[in-house]
Amino acid sequence: MSFDQLIEKIIACKNPTVLGLDSKLEYIPAHIRAQAIETKGKGLAGAAEAQFLFNKGLMDELVDIIPAVKPQCAYYEMYGWQGMEALARTIAYAREKGFYVIADGKRNDIGSTMEAYASAWLGETEVEGEKFEAFGADALTVNGYFGSDGITPLLKLCKERNKGIFVLVKTSNPSSGELQNLSLEKGFVYEQMGHLCEHWGEGLGGRHGYNAVGAVVGATYPEELADLRTLLPHTFFLVPGYGAQGGGGESVKGGFDKNGLGAVVNSSRAILCAWQHAKSDGRDYLDHARREALRMRDEINAAIGRMPNPTV
Amino acid sequence: MSFDQLIEKIIACKNPTVLGLDSKLEYIPAHIRAQAIETKGKGLAGAAEAQFLFNKGLMDELVDIIPAVKPQCAYYEMYGWQGMEALARTIAYAREKGFYVIADGKRNDIGSTMEAYASAWLGETEVEGEKFEAFGADALTVNGYFGSDGITPLLKLCKERNKGIFVLVKTSNPSSGELQNLSLEKGFVYEQMGHLCEHWGEGLGGRHGYNAVGAVVGATYPEELADLRTLLPHTFFLVPGYGAQGGGGESVKGGFDKNGLGAVVNSSRAILCAWQHAKSDGRDYLDHARREALRMRDEINAAIGRMPNPTV
Repeated sequence: MSFDQLIEKIIACKNPTVLGLDSKLEYIPAHIRAQAIETKGKGLAGAAEAQFLFNKGLMDELVDIIPAVKPQCAYYEMYGWQGMEALARTIAYAREKGFYVIADGKRNDIGSTMEAYASAWLGETEVEGEKFEAFGADALTVNGYFGSDGITPLLKLCKERNKGIFVLVKTSNPSSGELQNLSLEKGFVYEQMGHLCEHWGEGLGGRHGYNAVGAVVGATYPEELADLRTLLPHTFFLVPGYGAQGGGGESVKGGFDKNGLGAVVNSSRAILCAWQHAKSDGRDYLDHARREALRMRDEINAAIGRMPNPTV
Repeated sequence: MSFDQLIEKIIACKNPTVLGLDSKLEYIPAHIRAQAIETKGKGLAGAAEAQFLFNKGLMDELVDIIPAVKPQCAYYEMYGWQGMEALARTIAYAREKGFYVIADGKRNDIGSTMEAYASAWLGETEVEGEKFEAFGADALTVNGYFGSDGITPLLKLCKERNKGIFVLVKTSNPSSGELQNLSLEKGFVYEQMGHLCEHWGEGLGGRHGYNAVGAVVGATYPEELADLRTLLPHTFFLVPGYGAQGGGGESVKGGFDKNGLGAVVNSSRAILCAWQHAKSDGRDYLDHARREALRMRDEINAAIGRMPNPTV
């Protein structure tokens, strides 16, 4: 699925948000954990099964209101290869339900190694003449510290298989400035990374005006977010830092263009752990998740001040 | 295992090299692939089994001459969770044989997400009160673009479990300068990243003078490598780019200190694919690998002009 298709899903749902599946065990209600342990035992396999069941419930519940999901690879890797198996099943199920899937792996390397990551997440792996999708996401988050050698291996798949990438530009965390806000002769490091995104995306433009090379820009730096929206007119944004990290509707509105498009805003813990914030036992975790997802949608749309609109 | 223990293994082997296990299927001899397919079938599981068998052969052959191995995560991820299972088995076997194990994942994120990566690769994951090692490496390569928030979650494990990290500073690829060599008010971006490494490593020093926070510095930029050795006296280097990427013994010598220590040099394809360069059918891949490993050891020691020596 391309960014164009993501944008059309956003328009259809009237909702520019993405469900962050940071599904670590502490966020999963006891009844799901117990069910998983019963079938897969008390070890890593049981934990991974609980992740999948938790994710499946959320996706079934939220498919009519949220257009995209973003599993965070770290929370699956921590449960070993068993967790990675749960991640692969989560992605396959998300696609079956019609979600746009962003694998949040922040992968980075060069040449044939980056090609291997590209095959793993966005492409196919050939084994003895036959091709397999290892994880099969629609988009991957990546880190551009290597420069072009770390990005170009992905662009072929963006073109040929309608995939997308999100390059870290200005991240949401407090210490992001230690490197990203160092002053260059002209501008900051993160602006230079942004310009590279526009450059890498050339020739990969879609019908809604955005290239297949997007950028990660945090909600916790609203001024930089608004500046970058102007500076990078063809770069679609993935905006983390909403909710648990402190950003609200007002803080993300600068990431959107005049059509109410140009960004997706991630929420993980605020939705996943809504049942914990309500001090529930978790049996009704889906009701709490839905309530928070709707609240977030309405808050963001109110802040943007317009519904997402088709540009073509 | 700590960097001190890695250094002592280097001294014992008289060899500052690390075997890069970039074991993609194209590098694996036909007889191993056939054996793997026979037991695990022709799909991703068969490919992953071939990776493990190939790695096991190399580790058995080279354990007396090479102190460390560095599996590149990308080449396992491309075979899906089945590949990750082969990676976990490879790491477990490497530890059983006594190798120092560097997981080359270039992982990066913040806060609790980075803690999840730290648990996955260097720590333990708790499941219902019991603890499991998901992958269990000694060191992990990481990308510092997030600043301290991406690194501090690892430092606790460095201290408590004698682990190490290697932060990307100046990478070996042609386009590394696009971001890393941008000029700051003082110095370059990669130098600033280097200074951050020295800072992050404070309080984590070992008996050989190096902190648990190391740096990745490519062999393909020998001047920067030598400059960084002077600039970062407590930062141990992982040096890629030797061999297939063009660096030779002369290009890496600047990474070593006056005791012939301070760096490990990686070689992947030159050793893994030595049988292909010799136009062999691969049945003797271990002989070719051993010959290349010995040649590399001798070339680097000759370039350094001294044997690695204990400092304490």
